[in-house]
Amino acid sequence: MSNAVKKSGVKKVVLAYSGGLDTSAIIPWLKETYDDCEIVAFCADVGQGEEELVGLTEKALASGASECHIVDLKEEFVADYIYPTIATGAIYEGTYLLGTSMARPIIAKAQVEVARKVGADAVCHGCTGKGNDQVRFEGCFAALAPDLKVIAPWREWEMRSREDLLDYLAERNIKTSASATKIYSRDANAWHISHEGGELEDPWNEPSKGVWTMTVAPEDAPNEPEYVSLAIKNGRVTHVNDEALSPYAALMTLNDIAGKHGVGRIDITENRLVGMKSRGCYETPGGTVMFAGLRAIEELVLDKTSRTWREQIAGQMSHLVYDGRWFTPLCKSLIAASESLAESVNGDVVIKLYKGQATAVKKRSPNSLYSESFATFGEDDVYDQKHAEGFIRLYSLASRIRALNTK
Amino acid sequence: MSNAVKKSGVKKVVLAYSGGLDTSAIIPWLKETYDDCEIVAFCADVGQGEEELVGLTEKALASGASECHIVDLKEEFVADYIYPTIATGAIYEGTYLLGTSMARPIIAKAQVEVARKVGADAVCHGCTGKGNDQVRFEGCFAALAPDLKVIAPWREWEMRSREDLLDYLAERNIKTSASATKIYSRDANAWHISHEGGELEDPWNEPSKGVWTMTVAPEDAPNEPEYVSLAIKNGRVTHVNDEALSPYAALMTLNDIAGKHGVGRIDITENRLVGMKSRGCYETPGGTVMFAGLRAIEELVLDKTSRTWREQIAGQMSHLVYDGRWFTPLCKSLIAASESLAESVNGDVVIKLYKGQATAVKKRSPNSLYSESFATFGEDDVYDQKHAEGFIRLYSLASRIRALNTK
Amino acid sequence: MSNAVKKSGVKKVVLAYSGGLDTSAIIPWLKETYDDCEIVAFCADVGQGEEELVGLTEKALASGASECHIVDLKEEFVADYIYPTIATGAIYEGTYLLGTSMARPIIAKAQVEVARKVGADAVCHGCTGKGNDQVRFEGCFAALAPDLKVIAPWREWEMRSREDLLDYLAERNIKTSASATKIYSRDANAWHISHEGGELEDPWNEPSKGVWTMTVAPEDAPNEPEYVSLAIKNGRVTHVNDEALSPYAALMTLNDIAGKHGVGRIDITENRLVGMKSRGCYETPGGTVMFAGLRAIEELVLDKTSRTWREQIAGQMSHLVYDGRWFTPLCKSLIAASESLAESVNGDVVIKLYKGQATAVKKRSPNSLYSESFATFGEDDVYDQKHAEGFIRLYSLASRIRALNTK
Amino acid sequence: MSNAVKKSGVKKVVLAYSGGLDTSAIIPWLKETYDDCEIVAFCADVGQGEEELVGLTEKALASGASECHIVDLKEEFVADYIYPTIATGAIYEGTYLLGTSMARPIIAKAQVEVARKVGADAVCHGCTGKGNDQVRFEGCFAALAPDLKVIAPWREWEMRSREDLLDYLAERNIKTSASATKIYSRDANAWHISHEGGELEDPWNEPSKGVWTMTVAPEDAPNEPEYVSLAIKNGRVTHVNDEALSPYAALMTLNDIAGKHGVGRIDITENRLVGMKSRGCYETPGGTVMFAGLRAIEELVLDKTSRTWREQIAGQMSHLVYDGRWFTPLCKSLIAASESLAESVNGDVVIKLYKGQATAVKKRSPNSLYSESFATFGEDDVYDQKHAEGFIRLYSLASRIRALNTK
Repeated sequence: MSNAVKKSGVKKVVLAYSGGLDTSAIIPWLKETYDDCEIVAFCADVGQGEEELVGLTEKALASGASECHIVDLKEEFVADYIYPTIATGAIYEGTYLLGTSMARPIIAKAQVEVARKVGADAVCHGCTGKGNDQVRFEGCFAALAPDLKVIAPWREWEMRSREDLLDYLAERNIKTSASATKIYSRDANAWHISHEGGELEDPWNEPSKGVWTMTVAPEDAPNEPEYVSLAIKNGRVTHVNDEALSPYAALMTLNDIAGKHGVGRIDITENRLVGMKSRGCYETPGGTVMFAGLRAIEELVLDKTSRTWREQIAGQMSHLVYDGRWFTPLCKSLIAASESLAESVNGDVVIKLYKGQATAVKKRSPNSLYSESFATFGEDDVYDQKHAEGFIRLYSLASRIRALNTK
Repeated sequence: MSNAVKKSGVKKVVLAYSGGLDTSAIIPWLKETYDDCEIVAFCADVGQGEEELVGLTEKALASGASECHIVDLKEEFVADYIYPTIATGAIYEGTYLLGTSMARPIIAKAQVEVARKVGADAVCHGCTGKGNDQVRFEGCFAALAPDLKVIAPWREWEMRSREDLLDYLAERNIKTSASATKIYSRDANAWHISHEGGELEDPWNEPSKGVWTMTVAPEDAPNEPEYVSLAIKNGRVTHVNDEALSPYAALMTLNDIAGKHGVGRIDITENRLVGMKSRGCYETPGGTVMFAGLRAIEELVLDKTSRTWREQIAGQMSHLVYDGRWFTPLCKSLIAASESLAESVNGDVVIKLYKGQATAVKKRSPNSLYSESFATFGEDDVYDQKHAEGFIRLYSLASRIRALNTK
Repeated sequence: MSNAVKKSGVKKVVLAYSGGLDTSAIIPWLKETYDDCEIVAFCADVGQGEEELVGLTEKALASGASECHIVDLKEEFVADYIYPTIATGAIYEGTYLLGTSMARPIIAKAQVEVARKVGADAVCHGCTGKGNDQVRFEGCFAALAPDLKVIAPWREWEMRSREDLLDYLAERNIKTSASATKIYSRDANAWHISHEGGELEDPWNEPSKGVWTMTVAPEDAPNEPEYVSLAIKNGRVTHVNDEALSPYAALMTLNDIAGKHGVGRIDITENRLVGMKSRGCYETPGGTVMFAGLRAIEELVLDKTSRTWREQIAGQMSHLVYDGRWFTPLCKSLIAASESLAESVNGDVVIKLYKGQATAVKKRSPNSLYSESFATFGEDDVYDQKHAEGFIRLYSLASRIRALNTK
Repeated sequence: MSNAVKKSGVKKVVLAYSGGLDTSAIIPWLKETYDDCEIVAFCADVGQGEEELVGLTEKALASGASECHIVDLKEEFVADYIYPTIATGAIYEGTYLLGTSMARPIIAKAQVEVARKVGADAVCHGCTGKGNDQVRFEGCFAALAPDLKVIAPWREWEMRSREDLLDYLAERNIKTSASATKIYSRDANAWHISHEGGELEDPWNEPSKGVWTMTVAPEDAPNEPEYVSLAIKNGRVTHVNDEALSPYAALMTLNDIAGKHGVGRIDITENRLVGMKSRGCYETPGGTVMFAGLRAIEELVLDKTSRTWREQIAGQMSHLVYDGRWFTPLCKSLIAASESLAESVNGDVVIKLYKGQATAVKKRSPNSLYSESFATFGEDDVYDQKHAEGFIRLYSLASRIRALNTK
C-alpha cells in the first residue's frame, strides 16, 4: 500500500475521528495515499460518553493529525434531531429506534462546518463499504457540501480485518492500545448503543449477556417496579419526576432509571439500505420511556384520522432517517406535518418500569378528547344513542347496496 | 315500557345470546315489543370458555326462547379470521390486537346462517348504542343479509343500567343470577379478553390487579424465563414446542404458557369508530406470542420494500377489522395481498417468556434473505464494497444536484 | 305541516340563504316551526356570480328575514381555501377538483361569525338529507360552534319536491319566481359549477349540451390554440400572461380564457360520503389551468421521494376536503406538509389551450433539478456512468440473494 | 479500444439486439473484448412493428452473431404485463403510462430463457449508463438468473456518441445504414412509443410536430368526434365496438382508432430511478382509451374505501414497474390485491375521441353500486334521510368534543 502512487488533488481533509483502531490507521493512510495532505481530526460529542473523549486530541495529534476539533452537540442532538424524529413515531421495521441513524446527519453537518472553517477540500469517514453509515454520511455531504471530495478508506484500501490494521500501524511504529480481538462492533450516543458481530451474526443464537452494556438483564433488575413521571409539552419531555430538565439532561436521567430496570433492549434482523440483511442488538433505555410517554399522550389527544396520519408520517420518517435523507425537502415536510400534530401532545404520564418493560399506566392531558361521560354507558348531552342507527345505516350503505344489487 | 304499542312485522328473531343479564332481558322485551314474535337464541362458541356455555340452552328456553343454537366456531375462528388478520400485522392504533373485532364477523355470519335455517325475518344483538360492536354486527348483516331486520334493543328501549334490567326481569318473575354490581364489562374469546369500566374509566388510574383474568401479574410470574418454540408455515403456527397442533389448539396452548408469564397485557385509550374515545384493558397472551413469532420470521424473509408494503396492509387491515368491514371487497383484496407475501413466512422461532415479555431470541427460515457472509465485514462473491460508491452517488444524486443548483 | 306543535328553544337563526326556492321556503317554515324565531339571512359571496346576489336582501326581507348579511369572501376563498388545497394536488377519486367541497368550510365559518355577531342560537342550511353538503356544513359547525343548534329542514319537514315547496309558498301567499321544473341541480362559485339531475341520473347517458354553462363545447371552441403563461411562486399563481393579479382575479381571468376553449369539463360517478354513488358533471376551467401549471413546475423541482410524498398528501387531502373535515388538526398538518414542499414550487409555465385540453408545453424554474448535461448521453462532472454498476448491484441485491438462496 | 487486453471468462453471450447502430457495434466489440466469445442475438417482438424485424436475422449474422432468436411476445406482453399493471391504475408521477418500463421484464425473462436454451454464460444489453433501462434489465437478471454475467458495453467502453460508433464500425468494414444524425432517441412497443433528445432536452421548448409518430396532432384530427365502445371483464377489455378481440388485437385496434384522433400524447419531465430528471414525450393512444375505460367502470363498482385502496396499489405499482422490480414478492402481492378488486370491474363503456381527448361518456356495469333511486332527491327503502343526522353527529363527534374541551 505504502508504495502506491500518491494521489493528488487533496490538500486538507477533515476526518471523522473516534480514536479507535480504524480511524487511527486512516490518518497515516491518508497522508501516504493523498500526497501528504493535512489531516484535521474531528469528533462530534453526541453523548457517546466521556471515556471516549478523554485524551482524544493527544491521540489524534500523535497519529499525525494537525488539529483536533471536538464539538459538543449533545443538546442540539436531542433537541433538533431526536425529538423531531420521535414526535413522528418513527420506528424502523417495527423495532429499531434509529439511534445510530439520527446521529449521522448532525455529525455530518458539524464535520462540514469544521471543513469550511479550516478550509478543507475533502472529508473522510471510517465507515465500511457494506453498511448504512457510508450512505448516510455521504448523502448528507452531497446535500450540504457537494463540492467537497469524500474519501472512504474502507472502500479504497485493501485492508479487511483488525489484524491488517494492526500490522499497518506496527509497520509505521504507531502505537495503539487496540487489541486484535474485539467481539462486537458498537456505536454509542446519548440515545442508544448498537451491537453487531460475534455470535449475533447467526440469528439462531440468543444474544449472550456480554452483549449488553447500557441496561441490566431483566432477570437482574430490581424485583420491585419503579414509577417515573413525565411532563410533556408539544411532544417533548419537559420534566422527569417533576424536575424541569433540558432535553439532553432528561434523556440522561431516563437512561439511568430505565437502564437499571432492563428497559429498552432490542434484537432485530433488519434490511440495510444497501440491500442485505444484518442482525443487531440495540439498547435505548431512556428513549424507550420517552417513546412510551409520547404515544400515551397521543392516545388521549389524537382523533382516529389524525392518528392514522401520524402513523403514515412515522412510516415515511423511519425510512427517511434510516436512509440518511435528513437534509431534504421531504424531511422538512414530514417534520412540519408532525410538529403541527404535536401542538396538542401535552400532558402527564406515569410509566411503570419493571423487569425490562416500560408501561404507561397513568395518562392525562389538557387536550384530551377522552371524556368519561361520553364513553360510558349512560346518557349525555353530546351523544344520543339513537344517532347510532343513522350512523350505521350510512356507514354500511355501500355494503347494503352491493348485497342488494348482486342478489 | 311493557304497555307500549306492540310493533308488528317481525315474526321470528335470531338473538345473539350470551346468557348474561342483557340478553336475558332482551328475550321478554322482544316478545312484548314485537307482537309475540318467536325468539331463537343463538350462541357462537368462539372459545369464550366452557363455563359460559354450560346450561345456556336451558337458560334461554327458561327466558322464553323457542330454541337455542350453540355453534362451535373455534377452529374456523382461528383459521379463517385470526390468521388472515395477524398475517397482515394489523394492530389497531399501535397496541390493540383486535380480539373483539375479529370475532364479530364470524358471529354475525353464523347468526345469519341460523336465521336462514330457521326462516327468521330479523336478527337482534345486545350491543349498546355507544360502542363499536353494534356497527360491526350491523355492517356484517348489511353485507350478508340486507333483507333481515336488525333489532338493537339498547338503542330502542329506555333502560340504561343493570338496575333497570334487574327491575325489568323482577317485574316479570324471571330469575337471574346476575347481581346489580358488576365492576367491569368484559368480552372473551379464544384470542383475548377485554375489560372496560370501573376505575378504568379514568385513564389517570392504573388498572388494579382485579382487572386481569387470563394472565398473572408480571410480578407474580415465575422468576425463571421459559422458552417456547414455534414452527411457522405460510404465516401460520403449525407446531408449538415441536408438537403439531390445530390452529385453535396451538392458540390454547400458547394462552396457557404465556398467561403464566404475564404476557399479553395491554392498556389503551382508543378511538372508537363512533367518534369518542374509550379506555380498555386487553389480555392476549397466546396471540402476543404468535404475533412475535410471525414478525420474527418476517425479519428474515421480507426485503425492505416488501416489509414496508406489509406495514401498509397492516394499517389498512387494522382499521378495516376494527371498523367491522370484514365482508367487503377491500378485505378480500387486503388478504390476497397479505397471503401472497406470507408464502415465504416459513421457519422456526424460539420465544423467551419472562415477567410479562415475549421476546423472539432465535429465528431461522428456509426463505431467509440473511446471510452471514453478505452482512459481515469481509469480502464475498455477491457484494463488492466498491459498488457502494456508485450506489451512494446515484442514491444522493438529487441532493447533489439540488445543492449545486441552489448555490 | 303548518299545524304542527311549535318547537321552542330557538330564538334567532342564521340561515345560509341563496334566494332560491328551497331557502325561500325555509324562512317561513322556520318561523312556523320554531315559535316565531327571528331569521337572519346570510349569503356568502364566493364568486357564484353577481346575478345571484342582486336583489337578494330585498328578497330575504320580503320572505320574512329580519336582516340579510352578504359577506364578500372571494379573495379569501381563493387564497386560503383553494390554494392550500390545490397545492397538495388533491383530486377526489382521480377526477373531481373539489369545487363545492372547498367552499363549504369558508361559508360555514362566516355563517358562524354572523351568528356570533347577531347573537343567534342556531344555524340553518338548505342541504338535502342525501348529500355531502349537510355533513360538511355540520362538521364545520361542530368544530367551530358546538353550542349552536343546527337546523336541517330537509331532514325535518315532509316536503320532498319542488312542487311541495311551491305549494307551501303559495299557501302563504309568498311570491317566488321559481318554476316547478328545473332540470339540473347546480352549485357555483369562483372555482367551478356542478350539475346533477336530469338525464345525468343515468350514467349510461352522455351529458347533453344544455348541461354545461361555464365552458363552450370543445367542438365549438376556436380552431386555433391559445397559449397562456403563468408565473408561479410558492405554489401560487402570481401572474397571468405577465400581468400581476390577485388570487381571485387570476382565477377569473383563467376562467374566462379557458372557458372559451372548452377546458375543464368533468363527468364523474363518485362515492358520496354518505355511502351511495352519485353522478355529477363539473366545470372548472380556470382551475384546470392552474392545476396543470402547478403540476408542471413540480415536475421540475420535486425529487422522486418528495413527489411520492406529495401524492400521499394529495390522497389524504382529497378525502379530507370532500368529507368536510377542514377545521381539524389533520387538515392543519396536511397543509403544513404541503406548504413546506411548495417552497420550491416557483417558475413559469406556458399552457396550450385547445378544444378542451390544457397542456403545459413549456416549463422552467429557478429551483429546477433538471439539467440537460446530467440527463443526456455524454459525460458530466456529477455522474460517472460507471457508478451505475454499483447502484444496480446494491439496488437489486435482495433479488439476487433471494434467487441464490432459493436455488 | 481494439488493442485492449482481452477479458476472459465469457464464452457465449445472449445480446438483446435491435439491429440499430448501438447493438450492431456491440457484436464486434463483444468479440474483441471478451476473447472471441460467441454472440447469440436475441430480439423480443413486443409489438414494436414489423419494419424493425424485417431482415434482422440477416443483419445480426452479418454483424458476427452466430444465431438470431426472434421471440413473439406480443400477446403475452399485453395479457401478463400490461393488464396486471393497468388494472392497478399505475401512472408514474401522475402522467406516464409506463410503456417502456412494462416491456423490460418480459424481454429480460425471454432473454434469460434463450440464454438457458443455448447454454450461454452471459447476457448483454445496449442501454446507456444514465438511464432506467439498465437498472430494469439487470434487476430482472438478478432475480431470474443471478449466475449469468451481465455485460453493459455503454458503461464499459469509451465510445460516447453516434460518431464514435460509426467510426468503430467503419474501422472494421462493417456496413450500416445508420446515419450520424438522429434527432430523437425512441423506444416503441405495442403499448407506446417514447421520444427523447433534440429540442426536448430543454423543458422550455414545446415539442415540435416532428416528435410524434403514433398519433396525429389534435389540430389535424377529424373535426367530428368518434365513439368507441369497450366491453370489460375482470378489468380487461374483451370487445371493442362489439367485436371480441385478443388482448393484443384489442390494443392494436384502439391504437389505430385513437391515434387518428390525436389521443394519448404525454410530455413529462420525470425523475429517473438513477437520480436525475429527464424530459420525455410519450404516445399511448390505445392505452389511454383502455385506461379511461377501466377507470370509468371502477367509478360504478368500487366503493369509497376500495377506491382509495386501489389508488394506494397504483402508487406502489407505478414505482415498482418504473423501477424494474417486476420479479419480486412485492409485485406478486400488488397484483394479487389488484386482481381481487378487479373481479367486479365488469361492464360497458363508450368513449368519445375528439381532438386529443378520450372521454368516457357512457358507463354501465352489472356490479354497479350506483342506483338512481338511492342517489336522487326522493325517498327510497334503503336510505332514510333522517339517518343522516345520526351519521353526522357521530362522524363529527371528535370535532365536537375537541371544540367543547378546548373552550
